[in-house]
Amino acid sequence: MPDTTLSTSGGLSRRRLFAAGGAAAVGVAGTAVAGGLVGRATASEHPTPATESLLVPFHGEHQAGVATRPQTHAVVAAYTLRGGATLEAAGRMMRLVTDDARRLTAATPALNDQEPALAQIPARLTVTVGFGSGLFSKLGLTDEQPAGLIDLPAFRIDRLQPAWSGGDLILQVCADDPLVVAHALRQLTKTLRTFTTGRWVQRGFTQTTAQLDGAGAGRNLMGQVDGTANPGPDTPDFAPLVWAGGPGWFSGGTTMVVRRIAMQLDTWDELDTAGKEIAVGRRLHNGAPLTGSLETDEPDFTVTDTTGLPVIPAFAHIARARHTNDTERFLRRAYNYDDGLTDSGLIFTTFQADIARQYLPVQQRLADNDLMNEWTTPIGSATFALPPGCSPDGYLGEGLLP
Amino acid sequence: MPDTTLSTSGGLSRRRLFAAGGAAAVGVAGTAVAGGLVGRATASEHPTPATESLLVPFHGEHQAGVATRPQTHAVVAAYTLRGGATLEAAGRMMRLVTDDARRLTAATPALNDQEPALAQIPARLTVTVGFGSGLFSKLGLTDEQPAGLIDLPAFRIDRLQPAWSGGDLILQVCADDPLVVAHALRQLTKTLRTFTTGRWVQRGFTQTTAQLDGAGAGRNLMGQVDGTANPGPDTPDFAPLVWAGGPGWFSGGTTMVVRRIAMQLDTWDELDTAGKEIAVGRRLHNGAPLTGSLETDEPDFTVTDTTGLPVIPAFAHIARARHTNDTERFLRRAYNYDDGLTDSGLIFTTFQADIARQYLPVQQRLADNDLMNEWTTPIGSATFALPPGCSPDGYLGEGLLP
Repeated sequence: MPDTTLSTSGGLSRRRLFAAGGAAAVGVAGTAVAGGLVGRATASEHPTPATESLLVPFHGEHQAGVATRPQTHAVVAAYTLRGGATLEAAGRMMRLVTDDARRLTAATPALNDQEPALAQIPARLTVTVGFGSGLFSKLGLTDEQPAGLIDLPAFRIDRLQPAWSGGDLILQVCADDPLVVAHALRQLTKTLRTFTTGRWVQRGFTQTTAQLDGAGAGRNLMGQVDGTANPGPDTPDFAPLVWAGGPGWFSGGTTMVVRRIAMQLDTWDELDTAGKEIAVGRRLHNGAPLTGSLETDEPDFTVTDTTGLPVIPAFAHIARARHTNDTERFLRRAYNYDDGLTDSGLIFTTFQADIARQYLPVQQRLADNDLMNEWTTPIGSATFALPPGCSPDGYLGEGLLP
Repeated sequence: MPDTTLSTSGGLSRRRLFAAGGAAAVGVAGTAVAGGLVGRATASEHPTPATESLLVPFHGEHQAGVATRPQTHAVVAAYTLRGGATLEAAGRMMRLVTDDARRLTAATPALNDQEPALAQIPARLTVTVGFGSGLFSKLGLTDEQPAGLIDLPAFRIDRLQPAWSGGDLILQVCADDPLVVAHALRQLTKTLRTFTTGRWVQRGFTQTTAQLDGAGAGRNLMGQVDGTANPGPDTPDFAPLVWAGGPGWFSGGTTMVVRRIAMQLDTWDELDTAGKEIAVGRRLHNGAPLTGSLETDEPDFTVTDTTGLPVIPAFAHIARARHTNDTERFLRRAYNYDDGLTDSGLIFTTFQADIARQYLPVQQRLADNDLMNEWTTPIGSATFALPPGCSPDGYLGEGLLP
């Protein structure tokens, strides 16, 4: 397996020399600034304080890329385990993937990185890894599959395509620079090649300008402000909603739902603003609920208009998506996609401790009756269990895979 | 043609009201800042000075998007004229496209814009329009086709796919925010729908972090610093190299070559750094020629090593790509692409006054013998004539189309 072999010390030392060359280049860049040319800054293996805020810590109790403020660019890629996969090989795979992820997220080249300059760009890179139910069954680990991970039932609104569904393993790679995302995905896919085949890959983006303002996920391609009702990472609700409890290997993990939702923008455009706002339940221009004036105002479903009808209709998206009890909440971390000339939509990604308890009731209500179903179609669906984070000496999935 | 009809005054006035609502939302956002939430800034129809640098002027002697410092995101989309296209319809098409482009690049909604909030995000949007040779022949305008525009001959390295080649009309849409690019492309494609069918679309990106530093185009997916030898927009060479002279309708225009070049990154990765640097003729870590120490150093093809061999081999990319006389120069404005799991490369875009005189000799030399051909394959090719810019009262192509 040439792609995944840990390098010989000769190769490694050449790369270390190269990293030193990269550090020297920073000095060169400094000179070039005076000439009006800002150089190509490259981080050394020990990033300077100036670049630290652009590095998201990889190690910890939980994986990064969940509570992390959404980066501008994301790719989610699903893989199928090759036939005859063994527990031992799966453990080796996760050690190698972890090693790549740990280095790349520190803006340092992976061990067999052939484009080290592309690794040395700090851009808030996160690499997040999850296991589909197929991984558990193929490895004889069904007893270890977390109760929080289920395959979703079929919904009547679904028009699922195999090309966007399922998968034994998922990588979510996010960064504020698309070049960094591309390089990290390529490096990780090379490492996975011995163990897996590619199944699907989806690329998405958020609104850069909102990101730069620190405003979060920004608008989607329908023009809506998206993600307003999310639990904040600093609120006391966040941990119990998102992170699985103990005991067992999954403690500190989470589950991930990835739904590819195509938007029928042409028919959506036939609606006027008032019609769109009724379907969503929010004002388009600032995301405020129809019963409020600020994006952050709580919607009030009891308010009626002069004719006695509810201001926010019962079938409006926010009315159906609203949790009916405190359990039915989860973290949304969606990205827009735009492919071809007319294929646009949302890579709707959620994180929760337990899919059946938290996500499923809401999804079922939306599938049963949501005005937005007229202009949106789920064309892909997959679920994964994300192991907890690991320490600098550990690896992702270490409690499950030897 | 509902998509392209100029709005009734009723519809327009509703949208103007909406724009006013957007302006009001800025005030709301100002309040939200105190709560730690930065609001969704929206530009009014008369942008404030604070946002002006994020607007690239649409009107002028030349089209924007050529001399403009490359934005982070680009889409190039080619269209085929519908059968029976008339001169009159083509003129109407260009008036409508120009109207959309003029409004969108000012961060204001197009006349029939259904997602006005997505139009009001200043992100250095440019919209650039060009005509393929097919447009001239279909409209009976072959006598008007600029001498600078030719269809490229077949090169032995080409493995062209129809899905990435040709086209009667091209749009290049660039901005620093992918949401802005997506919205503008969608709006313009809607406007074009009555007149054209979509032929191909290619999405690309540059290195965000280099953009933010003002460093320009950054690295490509092979890890190379790309675009170093470009003529600078402020140099005296630029205008005669890029803009066509007069007289005639094409004066102030330019031609555009779009080549989709797939990279064979797996075999490229089998090379060590020294091998890669010999193939390119530049150092990977900082882009300096092998005979220099800074990216901006001129390569010296006469320098030999201790064995008497040239330090930059005769078949190295920069040796073959080097102009042999001052005519053989052009502006490169390339974007990286990364699709699927293993489909990466370059949307190699060039601008020049005359394709046959400036671009063709260099391309022929590269096709005949360039070490990089081992790891790159042209899979798409198209050429276009870009009309000059227009005034606030005019439209693109006004000298050609009634």
